[in-house]
Amino acid sequence: MKILVTNDDGIFSPGIKALARAMSALGEVYVVAPDVEQSAVGHGITVRRPLRFKHTAAAGLDPIPAYRVDGTPADCVVLGVHLLGRPDLVVSGINIGVNLGLDLTHSGTVAGAIEGTSIGIPSIAFSLDVGSRNGMDFEPGAAEAVRIARWVAEHGLPEKVFLNVNFPVNAPRGVRITELSTHHYEDTVVERVDPNGVPYYWIAGKPTGSEDPGTDLWAVRDGYTSITPISLDLAEHGFMPALRAAFEG
Amino acid sequence: MKILVTNDDGIFSPGIKALARAMSALGEVYVVAPDVEQSAVGHGITVRRPLRFKHTAAAGLDPIPAYRVDGTPADCVVLGVHLLGRPDLVVSGINIGVNLGLDLTHSGTVAGAIEGTSIGIPSIAFSLDVGSRNGMDFEPGAAEAVRIARWVAEHGLPEKVFLNVNFPVNAPRGVRITELSTHHYEDTVVERVDPNGVPYYWIAGKPTGSEDPGTDLWAVRDGYTSITPISLDLAEHGFMPALRAAFEG
Repeated sequence: MKILVTNDDGIFSPGIKALARAMSALGEVYVVAPDVEQSAVGHGITVRRPLRFKHTAAAGLDPIPAYRVDGTPADCVVLGVHLLGRPDLVVSGINIGVNLGLDLTHSGTVAGAIEGTSIGIPSIAFSLDVGSRNGMDFEPGAAEAVRIARWVAEHGLPEKVFLNVNFPVNAPRGVRITELSTHHYEDTVVERVDPNGVPYYWIAGKPTGSEDPGTDLWAVRDGYTSITPISLDLAEHGFMPALRAAFEG
Repeated sequence: MKILVTNDDGIFSPGIKALARAMSALGEVYVVAPDVEQSAVGHGITVRRPLRFKHTAAAGLDPIPAYRVDGTPADCVVLGVHLLGRPDLVVSGINIGVNLGLDLTHSGTVAGAIEGTSIGIPSIAFSLDVGSRNGMDFEPGAAEAVRIARWVAEHGLPEKVFLNVNFPVNAPRGVRITELSTHHYEDTVVERVDPNGVPYYWIAGKPTGSEDPGTDLWAVRDGYTSITPISLDLAEHGFMPALRAAFEG
C-alpha cells in the first residue's frame, strides 16, 4: 500500500514526522508538504504561478522520501500524485490544534483530505488538541491514526466521503463518532497604523462554540478521539421543495 | 437593507459592477473585493500578515462605496463586516465562469458566501457560464440575481445554508433547483525548466463532469439558471453506524 502524507503546518512540523513514521507500519510512505505553515488557507490550489518540488533531507524523515512544495496542502496532493504516483491513501496532519465544526472549510489540514477525496483516493485528516505547545505529544494520536488508517484501507470509504479525526490533549480514552459542532473562530479585526501613518488590519480569531453532547468539540474535550465522516456532496436536499415552489414553473 | 457585495475576480471585474449596480434596487450596497484576481483560493483567510482596506474610486462604481483588500474573498467579508457594519445579505460574484459540483471547495466566489453564512448572514454566490470572454453579458444574470436576492431577503435561508447560483451563457430560459454534479477540473501538471535549469511545475485543470439530469451542470448547459442550496453541515450521517460499530464500544 502506498500512502501520501501531507499537512498544513509545513514539512518541518513534529506532527507530520510522527504521522509519517507511524504510517510506515502500513506500507510505503512518502511525504509531500508545504515548505512553510499554510494554516487557514482553505482548499486553495495554486494556478497562477509555478510551484517548486524539492527533496528535503533536512526534514529528518529519512529513509521516508520527503518533498516540500512552495504552495498549499492541496497543491502538495496534486503534485505528489502526479510526480510520485497515485497512492492508495492520503493522510493529512497531525495538525497542531483542532479542526472542528465550522472551521473545516478554512483548514489546510482538511483541504489535503478534500483534495484526495476529490480525485477518488480514501483520505483522512488528523488534528491534535493542544493544551500548550511545549507539552504536546503526538505519539498517542499517531498510534490511533494507524488503527484508523488500517480500517479505512481494509473497508474503504463511501464515495466523496472522508474522515476528519481530532485527538484530545492527552492519550485518548476511546473513540466517539461525532457530529460537527458550532466550533469556529470568532473573527475580530485589530486595526493599527504603520510607520508611515497608514492603517492596516489584522484578522484574529477567538475559538468559540458549544460542547453539545455528540459533537466533535464535546468528544475531544471529554478526552476521546473524535471521528466525523464528512461528505463533499454539499447539497441541502431538505430545502429544495421550497426553492422549487418559488422559482421553477 | 444593507448588502455587501464581494467576488474573487477582483474589484475591477465587470461581473461585480453588474451585480453591485443591480443590487442597488434592493437597498444600500457596498462593495469590498480583492484588489487582484483570487481564483481557486478556496475559503482561505489571511491571518499571518496584515491587510489593507482602501477606498477605490477607480472601480467605477460611484456612488456605491467600493473598497479593495489585498486578500481573499473571505478576508473581504470579514473586513467589510467589521469596518462598514453588518449587512443583511452577502452576495458574491458575478464570477467569470461556472462554479459547479466538486469545484465548490476551491471557489473563491463561493468562499465569500461561505464566510457570510458562517457568521450568520444570508448569502448567495453567483457565477456565469462563459462561452467566450469577448461575448459575455452579465446583465441577464444580474437581473435574475435581484429576483433571487429579493426572495432570500423576504424568506430567509435555513441555518448554515446558502445558495449557489450559476447562470447560463445566454439569457436564462428559467430556473432549475439542482443537485451538485461531478463537475471538477481534472488536475494536470505541466513540467518546465527555468532559465537556470531548475524544474518548475504548473497546475492546470481541464473541466470535466457529466451532465446528469437534475444537476447544476445539466441546468446551465440546457440554458437554465441553476440554484443549488448548499449546507455547511458537512457530516455524513449515513456512514456513522458503520464507524460506530468499528470504533466505539
